[in-house]
Amino acid sequence: MKELIEIGKRAKEASKELAHQNTNQKNKVLQMVADLLEQSAPAILEANAADLKQGEALGLKGAIVERLSLSKEKIKGIAEGLREIVQLEDPIGEIEEMKKRPNGLMIGKKRVPLGVVGVIYESRPNVTADVAALCIKTGNVCVLRGGKEAFRSNNALVEIFQNALIEFGLDPHIVQLVQDTSRESAVAMMKLNEYLDILIPRGGAGLIQAVVQNSTVPVIETGVGNCHVYVDEAADLEKAVAIVYNAKTHRPGVCNAAESLLIHEKVAGEALPSIGFSLKMGEVEIRGDQHTCDLVPEAIPATEEDWSAEYLDLVISSKVVGSLEEAVDHINKYGSKHSESIVTENYSHAQYFLDRVDAAAVYVNASTRFTDGFEFGYGAEIGISTQKLHARGPMGLKELTTNKYIIYGSGQIRE
Amino acid sequence: MKELIEIGKRAKEASKELAHQNTNQKNKVLQMVADLLEQSAPAILEANAADLKQGEALGLKGAIVERLSLSKEKIKGIAEGLREIVQLEDPIGEIEEMKKRPNGLMIGKKRVPLGVVGVIYESRPNVTADVAALCIKTGNVCVLRGGKEAFRSNNALVEIFQNALIEFGLDPHIVQLVQDTSRESAVAMMKLNEYLDILIPRGGAGLIQAVVQNSTVPVIETGVGNCHVYVDEAADLEKAVAIVYNAKTHRPGVCNAAESLLIHEKVAGEALPSIGFSLKMGEVEIRGDQHTCDLVPEAIPATEEDWSAEYLDLVISSKVVGSLEEAVDHINKYGSKHSESIVTENYSHAQYFLDRVDAAAVYVNASTRFTDGFEFGYGAEIGISTQKLHARGPMGLKELTTNKYIIYGSGQIRE
Repeated sequence: MKELIEIGKRAKEASKELAHQNTNQKNKVLQMVADLLEQSAPAILEANAADLKQGEALGLKGAIVERLSLSKEKIKGIAEGLREIVQLEDPIGEIEEMKKRPNGLMIGKKRVPLGVVGVIYESRPNVTADVAALCIKTGNVCVLRGGKEAFRSNNALVEIFQNALIEFGLDPHIVQLVQDTSRESAVAMMKLNEYLDILIPRGGAGLIQAVVQNSTVPVIETGVGNCHVYVDEAADLEKAVAIVYNAKTHRPGVCNAAESLLIHEKVAGEALPSIGFSLKMGEVEIRGDQHTCDLVPEAIPATEEDWSAEYLDLVISSKVVGSLEEAVDHINKYGSKHSESIVTENYSHAQYFLDRVDAAAVYVNASTRFTDGFEFGYGAEIGISTQKLHARGPMGLKELTTNKYIIYGSGQIRE
Repeated sequence: MKELIEIGKRAKEASKELAHQNTNQKNKVLQMVADLLEQSAPAILEANAADLKQGEALGLKGAIVERLSLSKEKIKGIAEGLREIVQLEDPIGEIEEMKKRPNGLMIGKKRVPLGVVGVIYESRPNVTADVAALCIKTGNVCVLRGGKEAFRSNNALVEIFQNALIEFGLDPHIVQLVQDTSRESAVAMMKLNEYLDILIPRGGAGLIQAVVQNSTVPVIETGVGNCHVYVDEAADLEKAVAIVYNAKTHRPGVCNAAESLLIHEKVAGEALPSIGFSLKMGEVEIRGDQHTCDLVPEAIPATEEDWSAEYLDLVISSKVVGSLEEAVDHINKYGSKHSESIVTENYSHAQYFLDRVDAAAVYVNASTRFTDGFEFGYGAEIGISTQKLHARGPMGLKELTTNKYIIYGSGQIRE
């Protein structure tokens, strides 16, 4: 794939320059991009309108159109996000754990950019700006491969970044958008080991699995969330109702929304009707096991597939369990290792759940909806990792860096 | 591949148990393995002798035979290594960065095992014991796939681990050796995403590239070392001679040995003859550019391939450069991002080199031979990562862990 090799070469070259820009220089670029975004809102919206029009012709559905569409307010929001990134501390250059070894060598770990970050994503144009800004802040060059449905919007956004880079005498190839939006270009990008240091897929489960299965570039798997709320026998039922309702209905289309309710049989009789009622008020469809269906008249029977489903919609599966252990086993079997919550007032049950559930974020008495870079205090995120390597959970600036050992010697040789 | 799926299932199951053993329990197992290793030396040596005999029949060469062969002393060394691992601090369970968010949520990062660690390696049976011990200490189950030439030795070692595990009532499948040593079993292991959390290849460049190219399991690339020593125009020439000699000859068959010498033209006339003489005394073959050949009578002309070569032998390439920048560019172009050293007394040159060379370990005035878990103070290592994700440089216990966020709430829901 000729285009990608050219992009890769330019990215590698640009990377040498960007890695050595200091924080002030990087912040100035981001500040200018934020200003330009607001000034260029009409042009961006025009490009977006053309994308939307084409999408309409192609018969795109509701959720995709919603993700694809920009507005003046959304652009203002993106610009504000960039200004927040300017405020964040730059992790690059920090030297950790500098220690003197017995032979006098001083050994420390210096935080450095990863180099070239590739991102494959779908219809949301704001990902373009978020990723480019996080990468610039961390001294990383990015190669963006967005979906064809957002092609014009993405190009309009990338052009603004490139203009700001040029304005400060920097290489515009610090931010590049792959122009070929065919499936082949995505596959070629997954094999671009010579130029990409990391590849992050952002989007639906299909995209993520395609990247995991085909990429030889190191991948960080993000996002799929089959999250559970377990209402323990020792739960405070008022908290349980509020947490289940919030985790399911606050924003059902996102990865940290709850998709499954587990409830201990000792409290099911008392709690399930109230939880079911509140979910019904939220227009949530409940797909339950036999016990749930006995207790909640609106529930429809769940199938085996429901336990693994990421609905991203106003649907929840529900199962009555005989013990805490059964709940944890169910979560570890069917969950996607994203975010899991127990509602309990029992100390040992809370600790057991925290200890035994294998997921990026494990909660006691809180909604799963908090798994997010902003809510965790990182100010921004490039995605939520559901794998165990390099980064797990919300990925902020630090997760876009690596380290190199720097060693100060005075002539040491090994005996 | 039926055997691997069975191994994977048993590993996942064993992982649940091991992850929750406390440090004392894990140390007791390792202590017993160390004792059993010494007691069982005759049986291990018998298995090893059978491997060596078969190797002889197959016509194995010098270096492989050396790596394959065990002795009473080597076994004692392995046992001592295990006792050192017992002494190391257990990273599991530590909670870092526990912070209170404005909404009252307490969010911290708890260090947990990766889960199931796969390692594909070649002829060295000591890797079996090192990996198994490091994994047990960090609560990780391991799936070991050694070379067929060490099959009996590896089985003898794994049996000892399994006996010790059984003795303490633990699942022997915490340490498993793949019995099928065909190429197909290695390839099947690279696709075992359902059961393996990470795959580490340990061995030659061919093995490592095969794993990187074919694995869908997240890989940590280890070991290939085309390391350089750059003698700057401001070098202390006495240090330069000693460091080049040490980096090349101390143990030429390992990844942190120097494979290439770069020298500034301003000092080449004075320094190269002395360096050449000392290397000649060490029976090192020098493959040089024209300038080197002019100054060192023993040098033979280098080809383009020499600049990328990892000789793992008493051979070094040598090139005279016109500037520090040229040296750094050469290293970044031809190096393998392992260990690189500058010899200089000039402050700015040292900082430039540390800043600009892209490698896991960058040295000033020291031999590249120090890149090693023991020398860096980690007490042990599972390999030296030359990639940027998750771990870079010597990988100790901490690099065999990941984290999960644990969040203590009191009923928080997202507004």
